[in-house]
Amino acid sequence: MWKPDRHSQQPLYEQIADHLEQRISYGEFPPGSLLPSERKLAEQLGVNRSTVIMAFAELRSTGIIESRTGSGTRVSATKWGVAPKHTPNWKRYSEGGGFLPNLPFMRKIREALAHNPELIDFASGELAGDLAPNDEIAALMSEHRYTSYLGYDNPQGYIPLRQALVSYLEAHRNIRTTEASVLVTSGSQQSLYLITQCLLSPGDAVAIEDPSYCYSLPMFQSAGLRLFRLPVDRYGIDPDDVRALYKKHRIKMVFTNPNFQNPTGTVLAAERRKRLLDVASELALPIVEDDPFSLTSYDGAPPSPLKAMDEIGSVLYIGSFSKIAASGLRIGWMVAPRAIAERLADARQQMDFGLSVIPQQVAAQFLNSAYFEPHLERLRMQLLFKRDLLVESLHRELGDLIRFEIPQGGLHLWCKLTPDIHDGKLLEEAVRRGVVFVPGSVYGSDSGFVRFTFARARTEDIPSGIARFAEALRATTDG
Amino acid sequence: MWKPDRHSQQPLYEQIADHLEQRISYGEFPPGSLLPSERKLAEQLGVNRSTVIMAFAELRSTGIIESRTGSGTRVSATKWGVAPKHTPNWKRYSEGGGFLPNLPFMRKIREALAHNPELIDFASGELAGDLAPNDEIAALMSEHRYTSYLGYDNPQGYIPLRQALVSYLEAHRNIRTTEASVLVTSGSQQSLYLITQCLLSPGDAVAIEDPSYCYSLPMFQSAGLRLFRLPVDRYGIDPDDVRALYKKHRIKMVFTNPNFQNPTGTVLAAERRKRLLDVASELALPIVEDDPFSLTSYDGAPPSPLKAMDEIGSVLYIGSFSKIAASGLRIGWMVAPRAIAERLADARQQMDFGLSVIPQQVAAQFLNSAYFEPHLERLRMQLLFKRDLLVESLHRELGDLIRFEIPQGGLHLWCKLTPDIHDGKLLEEAVRRGVVFVPGSVYGSDSGFVRFTFARARTEDIPSGIARFAEALRATTDG
Ligand SMILES: Cc1ncc(COP(=O)(O)O)c(C=O)c1O
Ligand SMILES: Cc1ncc(COP(=O)(O)O)c(C=O)c1O
Repeated sequence: MWKPDRHSQQPLYEQIADHLEQRISYGEFPPGSLLPSERKLAEQLGVNRSTVIMAFAELRSTGIIESRTGSGTRVSATKWGVAPKHTPNWKRYSEGGGFLPNLPFMRKIREALAHNPELIDFASGELAGDLAPNDEIAALMSEHRYTSYLGYDNPQGYIPLRQALVSYLEAHRNIRTTEASVLVTSGSQQSLYLITQCLLSPGDAVAIEDPSYCYSLPMFQSAGLRLFRLPVDRYGIDPDDVRALYKKHRIKMVFTNPNFQNPTGTVLAAERRKRLLDVASELALPIVEDDPFSLTSYDGAPPSPLKAMDEIGSVLYIGSFSKIAASGLRIGWMVAPRAIAERLADARQQMDFGLSVIPQQVAAQFLNSAYFEPHLERLRMQLLFKRDLLVESLHRELGDLIRFEIPQGGLHLWCKLTPDIHDGKLLEEAVRRGVVFVPGSVYGSDSGFVRFTFARARTEDIPSGIARFAEALRATTDG
Repeated sequence: MWKPDRHSQQPLYEQIADHLEQRISYGEFPPGSLLPSERKLAEQLGVNRSTVIMAFAELRSTGIIESRTGSGTRVSATKWGVAPKHTPNWKRYSEGGGFLPNLPFMRKIREALAHNPELIDFASGELAGDLAPNDEIAALMSEHRYTSYLGYDNPQGYIPLRQALVSYLEAHRNIRTTEASVLVTSGSQQSLYLITQCLLSPGDAVAIEDPSYCYSLPMFQSAGLRLFRLPVDRYGIDPDDVRALYKKHRIKMVFTNPNFQNPTGTVLAAERRKRLLDVASELALPIVEDDPFSLTSYDGAPPSPLKAMDEIGSVLYIGSFSKIAASGLRIGWMVAPRAIAERLADARQQMDFGLSVIPQQVAAQFLNSAYFEPHLERLRMQLLFKRDLLVESLHRELGDLIRFEIPQGGLHLWCKLTPDIHDGKLLEEAVRRGVVFVPGSVYGSDSGFVRFTFARARTEDIPSGIARFAEALRATTDG
């Protein structure tokens, strides 16, 4: 990101005016488009707002930009000569399409983190760098060569990776499958995307958990699906609710995250698993089992997946490296009947032509390596340590103001705040104090819930992060 | 892929029956689903069809599968005990969704290549392994470490890669832009996908070239777009046709591949470029410039892109590594007004959460390295050599039966066959003789056209590949 040079002879405001003029002339801001506000620019460039005001005045004087009170500053629509030239109405195009934008809270959190990398991050649902197997992967990468084939690959996924996944699934998830039934995806995210786009049609009804990660994804609404809720209690969802939704709304699919659910950390009870599969087979209803967290189980005994009990092929199973290794690898997988795996591979070929072969090779090597098991063991211990530290800090700082169940796996702690609070205000106060979390409403809950991810923040920051959160909470409830 | 063990004591048909039973029990073929035909299985397993017939008989006798004349062999729907259990109707699900399957010819070619890697490949539109910078990339990868950060990254793309692209675009494409306007994608394919999905709405009219790569992509129809054709002559598309389509159908966007167009190899004439931009600015019409081939220009002077002449921001520019380095890296880019780049990044976060950071780092290093320029020079020389060899072979083998313009860049040669032929039959005859090409109808042409990619086949195979093609053509026209 460009910053003005404070040692230059040229005044800051002139440097900024020149810089903006260049960005405009390069097409970043076409004629008629809105520039960032004075306040935002000042923040980004690390200057006083008055400096930006002077830079804007400079540009206005040359006719390049125009300001109108209340509607911000725009690039002049007519600055390019006399002939009437018309830039496409990019604003209208960007509002076109069926794709809904991300939720405002998620965008706010992303922006806050991009702007201030020093924030204590209880929001990003992923591992801290020192929990990821960075050294192991570096070691593997220095031993191997990745360039024997760099052409278009099978869009269903690199075959040695699919083979490694077949072994992994049998050894770790008690799932027996074949490489023809495995589809490699860009994380669980792309598996969910392919299912919602290619196996369901706009107007179809589907059931998702409440609260649920799925609510954080406008993807479901973008696909035009009608969403119905399955409340999650201490034992997970109730299979009778599935039957009721089918009777009432003819739901076409059930999305569930039965093992250390995001955000609640709940594990679906064994007896309910059996009943859920019975309901599915009674109604010929497919179940999507999103299972990214199982292997984080702190006692080393991951819950067995629904898929392992699925005798008739009701379950589409989704897994990922994101929560047990590294989210930036973007490696996930789906296990599905062969015809479905092939159908989705065919569709995704049109979307992205499959994943890069390099991270697929890395993932296969890591799964097959002697590093994998010790990594998992270390990961579980570290997560347990961080969870305990978070729990302790919450008790110390918040006492009765907060209630939660202690999860036995996963990266998150789901909390109910006892004071009546306003989600957005609390987030704002927290960001101001240098800490972020995800408001529960993002997962479809009423306000008053909070998700803390304890896996991402540095261990030493957890106590002070919670102290800051406690301050923010006090400021919100007092205000 | 599993094969029966010919040295085993167990008869082949029994091995096959056991193997199929296992695959069925693993869920690759759920109850009620169709098994591959006897002929296909025999081919895949390298056995006689009669062996497969015996294996099927074995499975039928245990009630696991059922055959009905005319409708193939299915996994029995009731084999799992007495309780009425219902597998989801996966067939119906796989026909759901808005996503159209790939064109039958493309699937046929893909299957033929997967089945027989020895085919001489004039179909895959990519570089041969020895044209790709495999050694250079291997050298770079052994010098660097890729694991300093493996978390979720900015969905708009890894910033050092966007910075490298800004320099590349200025140095090689005469395009001035900023990293905020660059979006990194999984090849041009994903750029096109994001544009059609997120900036256009179902029912919108768009113009595409005829013939065109776009016709090979059901993606446009999947997005519900109405397609109108811009005929390509020796000088590319005619801007007056664009105006006419706008008047008549209110087209919302124009897709063009002006530099060494796929499949024709045409370069849009300079005078038409200017007029095209004038029409675009007159009508406020966005132009998507898909530009994967420019740097292959055999004389070393790539045509300047439309984007470099675009003063008001009418052009969305798309580039890719696929045709100048390696398609398996899956690295492409788009240059767009900032608001559009950010909108698409936001949407793609919900689709795949961005690309793996590893190939993005590799791509940035390669662009910034001293390897890049010499690689391009070598690539151009080798492509020219292969093009000449193909042209020679066609003249020798086919003489008057074929007509073409000789392209000055790109990977393809576009030919008109003078005999009246049936596309599908010719492809079948060619595959039988060990060679594949793409029938012109895939690109929206009438039958009688053929696209030969000369970049992919081994140089030494080009003459014999064309000899086989000539045989196939004779067999088709005689038949
Ligand atoms: C339940 C669940 N599913 C899917 C995802 C997507 O993760 P990825 O695409 O990185 O595998 C997440 C990430 O937070 C998740 O919590
Ligand atoms: C004109 C054109 N655009 C886009 C693509 C997609 O290529 P990639 O996604 O590998 O960049 C191709 C590939 O054949 C092409 O020819």
